[in-house]
Amino acid sequence: MDSTTILHAVDSVFDSELEFLTELVRHPSTRGDEQSAQDFVASELSDRGYELDRWQIDINDISEMPGFSPVIGDYENAVNVVGSLRSRTRSGLSLILNGHIDVVPTGPLDMWDRAPFDSCIDGDWMYGRGAGDMKAGLASNLFALEALKHLGLRPAADVFFQSVVEEECTGNGALACLQRGYRADAALIPEPFAEKLVSSQVGVIWFQVHLKGLPTHVAYAGSGANAIEAATLLFEALHRLERRMNATERRHHDYADHSHALNLNIGKIAGGDWASSVPAWCIFDVRMGVFPGQNLDDVRHMIEETIFDAARNHSFLARNCPEVVYNGFAAEGYSFKDDQSAAARAALAALDRAHSLVVGKPLEHEAITATTDARFFGLYADTPALVYGPRAEAIHGFNERVDLESVRRITQSTALFIADWCGLEEA
Amino acid sequence: MDSTTILHAVDSVFDSELEFLTELVRHPSTRGDEQSAQDFVASELSDRGYELDRWQIDINDISEMPGFSPVIGDYENAVNVVGSLRSRTRSGLSLILNGHIDVVPTGPLDMWDRAPFDSCIDGDWMYGRGAGDMKAGLASNLFALEALKHLGLRPAADVFFQSVVEEECTGNGALACLQRGYRADAALIPEPFAEKLVSSQVGVIWFQVHLKGLPTHVAYAGSGANAIEAATLLFEALHRLERRMNATERRHHDYADHSHALNLNIGKIAGGDWASSVPAWCIFDVRMGVFPGQNLDDVRHMIEETIFDAARNHSFLARNCPEVVYNGFAAEGYSFKDDQSAAARAALAALDRAHSLVVGKPLEHEAITATTDARFFGLYADTPALVYGPRAEAIHGFNERVDLESVRRITQSTALFIADWCGLEEA
Repeated sequence: MDSTTILHAVDSVFDSELEFLTELVRHPSTRGDEQSAQDFVASELSDRGYELDRWQIDINDISEMPGFSPVIGDYENAVNVVGSLRSRTRSGLSLILNGHIDVVPTGPLDMWDRAPFDSCIDGDWMYGRGAGDMKAGLASNLFALEALKHLGLRPAADVFFQSVVEEECTGNGALACLQRGYRADAALIPEPFAEKLVSSQVGVIWFQVHLKGLPTHVAYAGSGANAIEAATLLFEALHRLERRMNATERRHHDYADHSHALNLNIGKIAGGDWASSVPAWCIFDVRMGVFPGQNLDDVRHMIEETIFDAARNHSFLARNCPEVVYNGFAAEGYSFKDDQSAAARAALAALDRAHSLVVGKPLEHEAITATTDARFFGLYADTPALVYGPRAEAIHGFNERVDLESVRRITQSTALFIADWCGLEEA
Repeated sequence: MDSTTILHAVDSVFDSELEFLTELVRHPSTRGDEQSAQDFVASELSDRGYELDRWQIDINDISEMPGFSPVIGDYENAVNVVGSLRSRTRSGLSLILNGHIDVVPTGPLDMWDRAPFDSCIDGDWMYGRGAGDMKAGLASNLFALEALKHLGLRPAADVFFQSVVEEECTGNGALACLQRGYRADAALIPEPFAEKLVSSQVGVIWFQVHLKGLPTHVAYAGSGANAIEAATLLFEALHRLERRMNATERRHHDYADHSHALNLNIGKIAGGDWASSVPAWCIFDVRMGVFPGQNLDDVRHMIEETIFDAARNHSFLARNCPEVVYNGFAAEGYSFKDDQSAAARAALAALDRAHSLVVGKPLEHEAITATTDARFFGLYADTPALVYGPRAEAIHGFNERVDLESVRRITQSTALFIADWCGLEEA
């Protein structure tokens, strides 16, 4: 099949792709509320003849697997959707096309120029929470296959279209796909990293720090007995740890020139009940990055040591030792670059060919400072995982948006990559 | 009437007083939830033949009065209760017996040895949120009158028993009593200051600081863009202001030897939505004390100047100017000691006599570092307001408790004071 024909086929289905994406962004799939979006995806897959698998994640099934992240709360609404497209000939290499359906909270609505889930196209961009991260990727995965179908073709190997939950807090959605038995010769995850291949990704640990102690009427407020102000001391100590962890000699080689790859973020805080009561409690949520290859237990140890050391020198905290609670990401770093397997090299070469044909330039690589679900495939299933997706802006921010021409190009590259990696057969 | 007889009469009704107090503490009258406690008080007053007045506070009625504090939210459940005991003879001086029904939040329940509203007596103490601050005072007010009734007597002047809401956040409950027309020759408020007379009280300003700005994915976290961490910079600036405001040369004379009468309390905080999103917003609540005589507008100006000055030197805050919102106490300080009127001197002398008879020592005075509703009577109704109540511990804290023998003594002093100030007539 001539590659130009495939590129044109993507153009032919691109309006439908934008319709699909517009509708998908309108489903406000924040954590715990992914059902309507998954319903929509499942129905689109069924209509197109995919073999549908839809299941609720049971923590008991995955909690002993490597890569599992602890979660507080239940998984009543954590439902994965996988559509399988089976090949008759199975002459090529199989492929997982993965994307996550969950999106992060919107933050204050008045910071958005329009309602975050009221997706709309303005010029070259589609706006909306999740438009970039990563519903455009889900759309690209589906419509790369649609483009081939438009030509009367389909992959000559099994392809699994995965729409998973929990990417933004644990990765347990992707992990549950492994537990369910989904395997392939490679995985592609179109996370929005501006048409570059993610060569490495950091790991992420989430933890909460709980402070609690004896309060009093503010009339008797003494220095040091305020749980909210005690928290700020720990912020400083944690930022000192962050600086140490980013030190040149500690860096993974793919981050050698990155002066601050590991970000520590104080992301959320709540404390106190009453302006005139000295606050007895404060809870804050932290996200910390780690390099590929770093042992998470070692990092947890450093975090706890940092907090407890700082606490020992503080009048309030010394008497009321902080508690560290891990509730969310326990994600190791992953370096695709370090995977020297023949499969990884072959997958990279195929993607490079596809990208170069579409963009006219070789594929650039980037070591990113975030995590993705790629680690599950790469670290725990011996499956090279290519993270390669469109250009987006303000992901996790306000007025999140995705560049639609980059979505078109990613869809084209993906269709070419499928044709190359899986081969094609008649639909 | 022989004073010993009155003291014994208090002893006779003291078991009933403890029953009343035990029941009153069981009504969890935190802000917005005072109804069941007020129902109970109203029914106890009705049963005893008081003329009952019960009304919902209408902000429109009081918002233009001096002493009004702004409130966010509605007053749907802000209901005052006043029971009037009219004299036939009106030969003595009239009296307001005031107390507040509202209590501050409990904080984390697991910090309490037993449930905060499950009042109980253990040894010399009654435990429970509000037991000290100030339901024991309400009980004392009522049972001082009950003791006289036990002797077949009642005050020879009108006495108004007031159970008001909103003391812990605005004082608008006491203000509404003024608006309703209640006036007397003196007021007594048995706030729990350990059987001392409050010679002066500080004023209190509540304000919220709202921070909001552009967040981003934590992968791109840069220094200074974090609303939660930006807040901590303002904490420091506000504490510098606090130190300046407590400087020797700025002190009211009744606080000349008090090195830190004005406490600034960061009492509550909330910010951010997601551990892996740089927080775009943070709101914190502050309580600041002011000296008697200090102009609140001047203090507000200093607060705003402090915040805006600090903001100008901070990369995030300079671009996203903090907003200061006043929502709660706009309370001036009040010095009973500065009231040189004949009425104030007479009231003090009468209380001193009563106290000395009960305790065997002269009444001690204390300039306190909190506010009370006394300011409304003293500043805006030309009514000397005696703040004099039992000994309590851990008010606004955990395991709040009141010393029951001190409650007995305060009830006795109050009964003697009524007999002296109002005179007595046959019931």
